[in-house]
Amino acid sequence: MSQDNRAIFEEEHNVFRENFRRFCEEEIVPYQEKWLEQGIVDREIWEKAGENGFLAPNVDEEYGGLSLDDFRYSQIMIEELAHIGESGFALGLHNDVIAPYLTAYANEEQKSRWLPGVCSGETILAIAMTEPDTGSDLQAIKSKLEDKGDHYILNGSKTYISNGIISDLVVVVAKAPEGITLVCVPRGAEGFNRGRNLKKMGMKSQDTAELFFENVVVPKTDVLGQPGQGFIYLMQKLAQERLVTALGAIGGSHFAFNETLKFVKERTAFGKPIGKFQNTRFKMAEMKTEITIGQVFVDSLVMKLSEGKLAPDEASMAKWWCTDLYNRVVDQGVQFHGGAGYMMEYPIARAYVDARITPIFAGTNEIMKEIIGRGLGL
Amino acid sequence: MSQDNRAIFEEEHNVFRENFRRFCEEEIVPYQEKWLEQGIVDREIWEKAGENGFLAPNVDEEYGGLSLDDFRYSQIMIEELAHIGESGFALGLHNDVIAPYLTAYANEEQKSRWLPGVCSGETILAIAMTEPDTGSDLQAIKSKLEDKGDHYILNGSKTYISNGIISDLVVVVAKAPEGITLVCVPRGAEGFNRGRNLKKMGMKSQDTAELFFENVVVPKTDVLGQPGQGFIYLMQKLAQERLVTALGAIGGSHFAFNETLKFVKERTAFGKPIGKFQNTRFKMAEMKTEITIGQVFVDSLVMKLSEGKLAPDEASMAKWWCTDLYNRVVDQGVQFHGGAGYMMEYPIARAYVDARITPIFAGTNEIMKEIIGRGLGL
Amino acid sequence: MSQDNRAIFEEEHNVFRENFRRFCEEEIVPYQEKWLEQGIVDREIWEKAGENGFLAPNVDEEYGGLSLDDFRYSQIMIEELAHIGESGFALGLHNDVIAPYLTAYANEEQKSRWLPGVCSGETILAIAMTEPDTGSDLQAIKSKLEDKGDHYILNGSKTYISNGIISDLVVVVAKAPEGITLVCVPRGAEGFNRGRNLKKMGMKSQDTAELFFENVVVPKTDVLGQPGQGFIYLMQKLAQERLVTALGAIGGSHFAFNETLKFVKERTAFGKPIGKFQNTRFKMAEMKTEITIGQVFVDSLVMKLSEGKLAPDEASMAKWWCTDLYNRVVDQGVQFHGGAGYMMEYPIARAYVDARITPIFAGTNEIMKEIIGRGLGL
Amino acid sequence: MSQDNRAIFEEEHNVFRENFRRFCEEEIVPYQEKWLEQGIVDREIWEKAGENGFLAPNVDEEYGGLSLDDFRYSQIMIEELAHIGESGFALGLHNDVIAPYLTAYANEEQKSRWLPGVCSGETILAIAMTEPDTGSDLQAIKSKLEDKGDHYILNGSKTYISNGIISDLVVVVAKAPEGITLVCVPRGAEGFNRGRNLKKMGMKSQDTAELFFENVVVPKTDVLGQPGQGFIYLMQKLAQERLVTALGAIGGSHFAFNETLKFVKERTAFGKPIGKFQNTRFKMAEMKTEITIGQVFVDSLVMKLSEGKLAPDEASMAKWWCTDLYNRVVDQGVQFHGGAGYMMEYPIARAYVDARITPIFAGTNEIMKEIIGRGLGL
Repeated sequence: MSQDNRAIFEEEHNVFRENFRRFCEEEIVPYQEKWLEQGIVDREIWEKAGENGFLAPNVDEEYGGLSLDDFRYSQIMIEELAHIGESGFALGLHNDVIAPYLTAYANEEQKSRWLPGVCSGETILAIAMTEPDTGSDLQAIKSKLEDKGDHYILNGSKTYISNGIISDLVVVVAKAPEGITLVCVPRGAEGFNRGRNLKKMGMKSQDTAELFFENVVVPKTDVLGQPGQGFIYLMQKLAQERLVTALGAIGGSHFAFNETLKFVKERTAFGKPIGKFQNTRFKMAEMKTEITIGQVFVDSLVMKLSEGKLAPDEASMAKWWCTDLYNRVVDQGVQFHGGAGYMMEYPIARAYVDARITPIFAGTNEIMKEIIGRGLGL
Repeated sequence: MSQDNRAIFEEEHNVFRENFRRFCEEEIVPYQEKWLEQGIVDREIWEKAGENGFLAPNVDEEYGGLSLDDFRYSQIMIEELAHIGESGFALGLHNDVIAPYLTAYANEEQKSRWLPGVCSGETILAIAMTEPDTGSDLQAIKSKLEDKGDHYILNGSKTYISNGIISDLVVVVAKAPEGITLVCVPRGAEGFNRGRNLKKMGMKSQDTAELFFENVVVPKTDVLGQPGQGFIYLMQKLAQERLVTALGAIGGSHFAFNETLKFVKERTAFGKPIGKFQNTRFKMAEMKTEITIGQVFVDSLVMKLSEGKLAPDEASMAKWWCTDLYNRVVDQGVQFHGGAGYMMEYPIARAYVDARITPIFAGTNEIMKEIIGRGLGL
Repeated sequence: MSQDNRAIFEEEHNVFRENFRRFCEEEIVPYQEKWLEQGIVDREIWEKAGENGFLAPNVDEEYGGLSLDDFRYSQIMIEELAHIGESGFALGLHNDVIAPYLTAYANEEQKSRWLPGVCSGETILAIAMTEPDTGSDLQAIKSKLEDKGDHYILNGSKTYISNGIISDLVVVVAKAPEGITLVCVPRGAEGFNRGRNLKKMGMKSQDTAELFFENVVVPKTDVLGQPGQGFIYLMQKLAQERLVTALGAIGGSHFAFNETLKFVKERTAFGKPIGKFQNTRFKMAEMKTEITIGQVFVDSLVMKLSEGKLAPDEASMAKWWCTDLYNRVVDQGVQFHGGAGYMMEYPIARAYVDARITPIFAGTNEIMKEIIGRGLGL
Repeated sequence: MSQDNRAIFEEEHNVFRENFRRFCEEEIVPYQEKWLEQGIVDREIWEKAGENGFLAPNVDEEYGGLSLDDFRYSQIMIEELAHIGESGFALGLHNDVIAPYLTAYANEEQKSRWLPGVCSGETILAIAMTEPDTGSDLQAIKSKLEDKGDHYILNGSKTYISNGIISDLVVVVAKAPEGITLVCVPRGAEGFNRGRNLKKMGMKSQDTAELFFENVVVPKTDVLGQPGQGFIYLMQKLAQERLVTALGAIGGSHFAFNETLKFVKERTAFGKPIGKFQNTRFKMAEMKTEITIGQVFVDSLVMKLSEGKLAPDEASMAKWWCTDLYNRVVDQGVQFHGGAGYMMEYPIARAYVDARITPIFAGTNEIMKEIIGRGLGL
């Protein structure tokens, strides 16, 4: 079942995939080692992506986008980044997780102010939900917005924020008197500070940081949508975030599988390629099966999303199952690589540590099961 | 994700499903206990199915069928039988596994002779592949066809033959001088004897038997297709058989899941429904996820089959994965039923023992992995 | 790691094992098919076991036992019964689960009255805990003991009672005004009725039944220990019951493994014994490992039990882990048997359905995890 | 089941454990961060360990050891290092994997020359088996010893050598004309060069390197035992190496479990400690069970080793099962830590990447299953 043969893609998608794949090879692959070393990608890649129309292409043309309202383009970009093992350049996060809050809940004035930069790469986005000691429990958020008439005063701290260092505009989830509220805080706002780039197990070129807000003035013109509606907004967008995560996980699984397949065909032991041993062949067959099944499932959800019919429990199913699968695949992949699998110069070793966050972020897999279970009336 | 909401079905399929469901409720459910007791279904059900157009409806009208060339009708019947836990009335075997050998390889004369009975229920089909000590290795078949000019003499024995007792026409796989060959042996042929109805772990109303062929005269007019082409014919039809098995396994999984869901909502322990315990909720959520994913996958293969594009390795993927899933689901279902799950009066107990054959028949799951592995070049 | 080479056994145990093994071969194996057919063992086997000193040998000589206070003898009998696949003759239940209530809590008079029959086989024991709709939740028991001065009136019903039909003396768990209380009800007590022999998935020669108590007069001289102390008594004895279950499960695992090992060495496919395929070899190696590890663990607990140091959470660990293992082993065993594994004439098929109750009875494995979890302070 | 309560330890072992634990706390814990940063431990720790009698204490007093011939002391040191998450200071490798080659196969003269340094910490050991492209297949070794009369000329390269940088004496496995032969090559030998410290996924303070031997003169007085007997020597010592690996894995599992237990008791979500959720409680109970069972098993093997009765297949069982368990435990531990589990400042994150090598080194777990399988006659 080749990538080019999937039921959901039309000719224009294949052309787009080719273009984006070339972009990856020319503009990303040569820099991956450097980014890993420095713990953050270069800003230039964001700008180049913007120039090529790869940033939030679904945004209306009047705000700098391409009015390309078809989630399959997003899917293709997520997949292709996964296929080169790129986990630092957070395109999916920017395009498909955070930008949608702006396109859905920002007013005209805000859109005019923010979206052109989002599309050009000048304005890199982050979203700040998790707090120290909170985890996936949004209701327990302590960051506070104090109402001062025409502005709020924001106090609080956030942690594990992807794009924490590089971002220019942060959607912050905090409690206003009206309830949970989303506000946008730009780089440079007084009282807004960033901690160090956290030392993670993997995703070494993705900058992740704590953010501190100390008496930050947030003009009411920077509130997204209605104050107090934040929880509802989050709920509405989380399904898409989870599908994005699932797509990345399936893409990563393909990548890890292919790296492993190549290895077991080349490496010999006891006189034959290790892929010729029945245990290897069976386990490779099992992985191929599950990756194929997972791919068909997420493809079907991409179509549902496009039709506005993606159900939250389906997105949760895709999220937990595909991220679990991803971890099984990289684990087996490392094992078949033997000692090489433990060496960071091999892509499978990087995939192994990259994959481990996916069952945790975007709502832990335990939360996913709660959501599905509740949908069953349990 | 309800059954009625699946992407692949049109209005006419839903109507057909309703009709067949009513047929199940009226003509099958009231007899299930009796059939289980007697170890075989009544011939009447085959005739009733024929009268209602449920036997091989894809056969051309000139041969007694409905020219209903759409595999989704078959899928619906397989699913609905699974949803009532019916594992004895081997409709899928007759319609979708064996009849296709006749429609594909029989000549005009043979079709005229055999197909009307196949469609009316007068001629119940079986296929005899497995031999004592052979298992899934078709090349090792020992049954022999000796060429006597205008006829063959068939000698050999077969085992684990579904419909072994009730069948009227048996497609026998045997070795002719030309190689593996398919011949049709009718009930009553001299020298053709059947052993006792084998005592199986489950599928208690499905008659399974040994068949003995001792100097059976097989006129050459009863050879299917070309002598020596049997292996190729089998290979061409096995993909569909595997998909049929997968469809039954997913249908059975739905059934077992729903029985269990009902039970965990009703049964209380320590003061609350056992479904409200987090462990139960999570495991139910996990099963629901995998059943949903599996359903989407087999649905996509049904469409491929209809388009003539079903690849053998995809069918193998569906076969092993769905039958494994089925067994996980019934196992968890029994556990959540507690002591009740061990009592044969509960449908989950019957599903548990019915399910266990599915990773073995239609090619063991190990064979499936060999096929997929070879497709990977391993 | 042979059975005869285990660290915990002395010469006298090996002699005893030989004797009991011969007893099994001569007095049990020839009757197994018959017992399976009739759904219950013959009373004669109990009497023969008594004559040979195999019933409750730990009971003091004055009450008809052998004063053989060493749990390893019990262990040996449980193991040897498992090694012949005998799941109907409930020796472990009688000797090691129920008799201990009498030896621990009965007074002198009661011991004189009951124990000689327990040791001779005249008095077969059962214990009645579970009620319809109760499951593992002892606190929810509804059977009631009404205080009438010198006697109680017992009302209630019990279900899934092993030895339900054959038993002569039933330890009944019921609620007296003082709290949960254990009383002994003999065969023939007025108002004590037994339901039909329940149709179970496996353990076909073990009679399991519902028991009904309708205004049964229970003299206070038939109360075990103190009224209201029943829950404490049960807690004190359940650890041993769980170890007994674990021992049976490990014994059953050995049996299923050995049957499978024999099969995969004999049966060939594609030109070699199926045991020579790497997948088979690996899975056999995995099972052998886990059975060995499990055996060492339960052996260590047998020694702890003998020293009075068996902790409830350790017994719970052994119970859930060994019964899960047992089910994994029989499942893999069936798979390697192919079609034969589904035929009830093969011991592996019987083991498959016998094993399935073990994660449920003697406290479900979920309850075991609750106990262990609570021991961790969670 | 506390650590202090295990059946195999006597009072003297507990005293020794206390001493070594204090040594760990005082001499290791304060330096762990530094060692991780520099990718190698300080030589000083080896010397301090020597001063305190912790290096090869089983060596005879005449060669500088303590004649402490009881493997439980080794076990205690391996466990205690695991309990502080120390994976860089390769004490077990030095004491229990490599030194045994010297004590078993070195002659008097060699012992006098090498063992005092081994015991003092002056002579840190490494063993060089694996070659680029060889993996676990010892027979495929290409390093060559050319016989030049009173010396050999060694050519070849080795990879993934633990203590590759810090070691002073390397036991090299190479092919002499007589067959596989073990020779000792000291630091500074002409033509012996070391590659860079390899960048591994974890075990960041353990220096691992490639070693290059180019026309290295190896005097025949530096051959261990008989030329051509190397394969037999390796086979004789590999069982102990595998047990050492299993001990480390169980120790690491305890460590990871305890870190996680602490975390789930402290961290709250949705208003209660996450350890109070049933899913957490069950999974913690499952891990506790398997760690306990694994501990009892390896303890039993330690006793067998001491009695000279450790069978190779038992050591293989312990190796694969305990290292698999270790990886399951760290994986679940990371998951329960949520985002924190992905941050390298948390011990669980380090344990996660440390653990991953254990199913690969000391013979891959696949090799272990081959060994066990062959022991079964498969």
